[in-house]
Amino acid sequence: MHSILAMDAGGTTTRAVIIDATGHVHGYGLAGGGNPTSAGFDAALASVAAAAAGALGASRTPRSLTSAVIVMAGFSSLMPRTQIHDRLAMLGVSGEVHVDSDLLGAFCSGTTRPDGYALVAGTGAVAARIRDGALDAVADGTGWLLGDTGSGYWIGHRVVTAVVAALDGRGPRTALTELLLANLALAWSPQRLAGRPRVLLELMQELYGLRPVELSRFAPLAFQRPDDDVAREILADAARLLTGTLAAVRANGLDGPVVLGGGLLTGPPQLAALLNEGLGDADVIPVATGVVGAAVLALRRAGVDVDPALFERLRRDVAAWSTGAHTS
Amino acid sequence: MHSILAMDAGGTTTRAVIIDATGHVHGYGLAGGGNPTSAGFDAALASVAAAAAGALGASRTPRSLTSAVIVMAGFSSLMPRTQIHDRLAMLGVSGEVHVDSDLLGAFCSGTTRPDGYALVAGTGAVAARIRDGALDAVADGTGWLLGDTGSGYWIGHRVVTAVVAALDGRGPRTALTELLLANLALAWSPQRLAGRPRVLLELMQELYGLRPVELSRFAPLAFQRPDDDVAREILADAARLLTGTLAAVRANGLDGPVVLGGGLLTGPPQLAALLNEGLGDADVIPVATGVVGAAVLALRRAGVDVDPALFERLRRDVAAWSTGAHTS
Repeated sequence: MHSILAMDAGGTTTRAVIIDATGHVHGYGLAGGGNPTSAGFDAALASVAAAAAGALGASRTPRSLTSAVIVMAGFSSLMPRTQIHDRLAMLGVSGEVHVDSDLLGAFCSGTTRPDGYALVAGTGAVAARIRDGALDAVADGTGWLLGDTGSGYWIGHRVVTAVVAALDGRGPRTALTELLLANLALAWSPQRLAGRPRVLLELMQELYGLRPVELSRFAPLAFQRPDDDVAREILADAARLLTGTLAAVRANGLDGPVVLGGGLLTGPPQLAALLNEGLGDADVIPVATGVVGAAVLALRRAGVDVDPALFERLRRDVAAWSTGAHTS
Repeated sequence: MHSILAMDAGGTTTRAVIIDATGHVHGYGLAGGGNPTSAGFDAALASVAAAAAGALGASRTPRSLTSAVIVMAGFSSLMPRTQIHDRLAMLGVSGEVHVDSDLLGAFCSGTTRPDGYALVAGTGAVAARIRDGALDAVADGTGWLLGDTGSGYWIGHRVVTAVVAALDGRGPRTALTELLLANLALAWSPQRLAGRPRVLLELMQELYGLRPVELSRFAPLAFQRPDDDVAREILADAARLLTGTLAAVRANGLDGPVVLGGGLLTGPPQLAALLNEGLGDADVIPVATGVVGAAVLALRRAGVDVDPALFERLRRDVAAWSTGAHTS
């Protein structure tokens, strides 16, 4: 029986599914980060191979895989297609390997409509306009140093700079200080050293010991104190910036749903709620994974018409496999 | 004849002077960066030794150096005093080697008064309160990732993020785009790649190839277009933030001059002018180097009363040596 491999190679998780032409899922595999930009080429390739092997191993009957589609962020010359192809060929993928944008994957995980928008916010933040089932325009996704405004990194960075300013007497007091010090197991003390609070020097040492992008791990602190003015302002600014990123790809006359992806918009409810206020009456669809979209793209490439019934079957099957509740 | 070595070990330049108890300068030496935080310990130590050797070599008569004072930013365990001491002992410094804050050095380069404030903005930004001739409180100087708001790094970062947002359609058009692209020898083109302007992808590649702190090299672009709204807002925000940093160390009842140092406040006139508006009627004194203050601190440690006449002689002598116009 002919089957297709569809994968979502994300920054922290790589998901693979084996599907047939009716949208049924016959195998599901998980691995670590498969994004070459953040994980490095070798690690990304290893994750892609591991997730694919996992999906094949979970399949009850031997399958000949006639093609593969991988959706991936920041795909570029960093990950030569031939090497992915060779690696997947060893696992039995006999046909072509296609790589598509993770933004298209996210969009197609939420809707079968050809036009619309996607906004994905996790560690980074990026928006896309989809026209006729293809990527038409992208905004932001410019990384921690240059943009990704409103992202997990951006919120985490605002949290730590707010705490540093508060300890320094340059900014207002905030409940985030206590949360951040506790998170880093630092104790507040009244002691001063060379004209500064000792705890500020300790905090600086801890934070400069991280890779900048790791500041995203402090983003959850901003969601823990809705009573704190500083925390609330950070989240309101993040929602405003994400709305602005989406606005940058809006085109007059191109209507369609707004698919929301990424941990920041599908995890804690506050930000999605703030964001929804800015989205007006758009049809907003949150999605938990891009692997459904990868499967949709793979089926379309194979000439299958992905109608609403097939799409729902695919979504249900992926959800069942990912929660371990599949029955095939 | 007994003499004293006084040094300002800065991020890009280390200056050394040899002085006598009357405030006359008998030798002047220059070397590269002597700050262990930015240059690394070995390079900083080499610069300190080179500047000291230069000052000794420029002196007409052999001198026995009874002590040394070095002013330095971010001095900490990074640069063990014993190694500086051993290195300077090889050059003939027989007595003690003291290390003081560069903020105290900057303050004492501008005034002989015991109380007041210093605000130093170059690549970084930091303010200090001086009480009874000693460092009493410090604000900011928390580095590029966590603070240094209003600094050269901060302005450069705002310049590049404004240009990235403009190219991305998320921010207003700005004349800074043309300046930044020209600075990096990138040509604008209407070509798009994967939903983005090609030049934006090229710009991102260039900027992520730099160490983040190197973004300070784009700060001068903000001063080149006073007709541009975005550039003007960046400088106004920088001035407001620097005023806020200074405000954080202000103490009721502690009056005194505000000494301004660092390339950002003593170089282009715009920022100092914006800043002066925020300083009200304070006595503002710009200083070009902290080596005069190092000499003042060295003389005080040697029991010399640094009166206004001696101070003026010292300033004049340092200025003459540093411009090559000395006559001693």
